[in-house]
Amino acid sequence: MSKEKEFLDAKEKALNSLEKAKSENKVDEGIKAILDIINGSDEYYTSSSCAGRIVLIELPQLGDKKGAEFLGKWHRKIEPDEIGGAAKKAKTGMLWLLAQSPILHIGANTHDASDNLLKTAISCGFKNSGAKSTGRKIIVEICSTERLDSPIGKDGKLFCNEEYLNLLVNIANEIMDRSSLKLHRLEEKLEKYLSTRKTTQQ
Amino acid sequence: MSKEKEFLDAKEKALNSLEKAKSENKVDEGIKAILDIINGSDEYYTSSSCAGRIVLIELPQLGDKKGAEFLGKWHRKIEPDEIGGAAKKAKTGMLWLLAQSPILHIGANTHDASDNLLKTAISCGFKNSGAKSTGRKIIVEICSTERLDSPIGKDGKLFCNEEYLNLLVNIANEIMDRSSLKLHRLEEKLEKYLSTRKTTQQ
Repeated sequence: MSKEKEFLDAKEKALNSLEKAKSENKVDEGIKAILDIINGSDEYYTSSSCAGRIVLIELPQLGDKKGAEFLGKWHRKIEPDEIGGAAKKAKTGMLWLLAQSPILHIGANTHDASDNLLKTAISCGFKNSGAKSTGRKIIVEICSTERLDSPIGKDGKLFCNEEYLNLLVNIANEIMDRSSLKLHRLEEKLEKYLSTRKTTQQ
Repeated sequence: MSKEKEFLDAKEKALNSLEKAKSENKVDEGIKAILDIINGSDEYYTSSSCAGRIVLIELPQLGDKKGAEFLGKWHRKIEPDEIGGAAKKAKTGMLWLLAQSPILHIGANTHDASDNLLKTAISCGFKNSGAKSTGRKIIVEICSTERLDSPIGKDGKLFCNEEYLNLLVNIANEIMDRSSLKLHRLEEKLEKYLSTRKTTQQ
């Protein structure tokens, strides 16, 4: 199969999955516009995305993602009480509060297309972006550097007092705010860039 | 200039910088063997590296890396007292304790070479790896997912009590241990892989 045909097949498959996810309300509102912009281009498609989230997770062992238990997951800003509530479900292991900035996986049809996308993303502050696969199939990951990875308790008991927890939640919320701003910046810049590409190609 | 010539020039420049850094004791001991293995290959060169570190940093504002002040930087496991000592230099802003796993930047001469390197790195647990640039110049970043990004105080005052600080330092030290293990795994796998490549090319 030609490389172009493989790209088109992968794009079709990805768009079908996206439509399904949209119909099941599994796509973050804040990221829908940018997905449409990217998928409207001949050079790219999105294969997965998250607009940013706050997570309370229980990890039996450091780095043991398989054994990880999600106690709370919020695609929005939260109140400190919500952490306490979610932590009640904890059993054994370390409790981590994470704030994760947006992440997008994007297929590109050429190395030039992937490089242009990477440069655009990095210029919008998504400095942790990189191509995860640069062989026949090219997949670019767009993500940012702001994050919180903070152990806040163990075996169901929170270590931090109320004041400290408030501070952590404030930081997590600030990361969510900054995530929205950065996504908007990327949306604008990609829209502008991709409209030029269309003109060039026609 | 041909792409190959550009690669060779970039490699020569990188190796000169590396020799200078080595002579100034600026290269982490734990990463020297892997750098030599990579630079011994015709397909790659290393442009920067860190074997993993624990950092105490003061950030005036979230994500404000320019205004960041490094109060402590350790390329080894630490004692909780060392955090307290370094925090004495704090002025204003949020204090973050970070543990960062190894990071390597590697130039590759072809997209296939970068893809093979990425696959090898990911199979050794460096799951955050990606190509940062996929155009004429190809740069792969190898890094892992374990990390600690924990705000521990503000304006010179630590929020966490002794018990909590001990726990955070334990986790940071565990990240350093896991970093060494992963680097050794990558070293072995790359040595094996690159020796096959040499045979194939001869």
